Amino acid sequence: MAAAAAESKESPGNNPGLISVKDEATKEYFLQQTMLRVKDPKTSLDFYSRVLGMSLLKRLDFPEMKFSLYFLGYEIIFHDEQDTASAPADPKERTIWTFGQKATLELTHNWGTESDPEFKGYHNGNSEPRGFGHIGITVDDIYKACERFERLGVEFVKKPDDGKMKGIAFIKDPDGYWIEIFDLKKIGEVTAVAS
Amino acid sequence: MAAAAAESKESPGNNPGLISVKDEATKEYFLQQTMLRVKDPKTSLDFYSRVLGMSLLKRLDFPEMKFSLYFLGYEIIFHDEQDTASAPADPKERTIWTFGQKATLELTHNWGTESDPEFKGYHNGNSEPRGFGHIGITVDDIYKACERFERLGVEFVKKPDDGKMKGIAFIKDPDGYWIEIFDLKKIGEVTAVAS
Repeated sequence: MAAAAAESKESPGNNPGLISVKDEATKEYFLQQTMLRVKDPKTSLDFYSRVLGMSLLKRLDFPEMKFSLYFLGYEIIFHDEQDTASAPADPKERTIWTFGQKATLELTHNWGTESDPEFKGYHNGNSEPRGFGHIGITVDDIYKACERFERLGVEFVKKPDDGKMKGIAFIKDPDGYWIEIFDLKKIGEVTAVAS
Repeated sequence: MAAAAAESKESPGNNPGLISVKDEATKEYFLQQTMLRVKDPKTSLDFYSRVLGMSLLKRLDFPEMKFSLYFLGYEIIFHDEQDTASAPADPKERTIWTFGQKATLELTHNWGTESDPEFKGYHNGNSEPRGFGHIGITVDDIYKACERFERLGVEFVKKPDDGKMKGIAFIKDPDGYWIEIFDLKKIGEVTAVAS
């Protein structure tokens, strides 16, 4: 049994390049952020908070360089007077707290794009030249989530029952970036043939 | 004091578009993955495991569509016979386990690019057309981490003491994607003027 496990598809023996023993120097590392440029923070904040349920963990403004950064994540931030406990009130402490959270989305706003008629929008990476593909969000129930997205007028790249891969969906954020949507009840089955 | 906290820079009143009360429907959502296309999984697996300390959580292969997906993350995976406890041995269960982890990096390999002389490489989003910017990794010590990256021959976009922002760095992965590197000891000070 142990030998079989050691020969899993994910073992170093089956994956050239993969090392089996991590360098101790990396033991405190974690993936903290993914940065996307956005045209208009008002539209993006609405989408990521109202539609996808994220909170604004931290905003950083750089007036000299004319840009702002919005760090969003799933940590609960209370905006009323009763409870702001989960994020420190001190601005610098709040930055440190934010950079201590895993899996945040960093939106970069270069000032002026939201009202510049010459601005052509950002590239989502899924047409040439390709590169970045998407971010992905685990939800409680893929069908329930997608019905809600439809009601909210979200644009779909792929509805959950389109194509061969039934049970995963792709939606677009306001800049056209793709967001994959899946749940833990369906993902095992959807990808069983590939696993 | 509470009133002051309610008027933080991050409050909805200071951020048009941001809603203050999350829809209950989103309460189990979390940011699970960021997908990047890569030319050669051997080179990428080496970089992300050896240099950045990630594990291969799951691989999915789609022979009909000629691509594979590599899910990497900071969960510890033991590759010896003594302990594979943190990832289920059953392939489908391992997929579900992987999609239950926050902050994974999904690398997509379209078969053949690694040996195709015509393949021009992927676009990192930081030259026109721009869009995606970078992923970011929190490390224990920015200077110690960057000294190690230098020893390992990693390519830098910005060394920690280059430019105005002392104490943050940008490195490149094998496909040229940017990775920001920072630590919790320095990040508050580096961004203090913006916070």
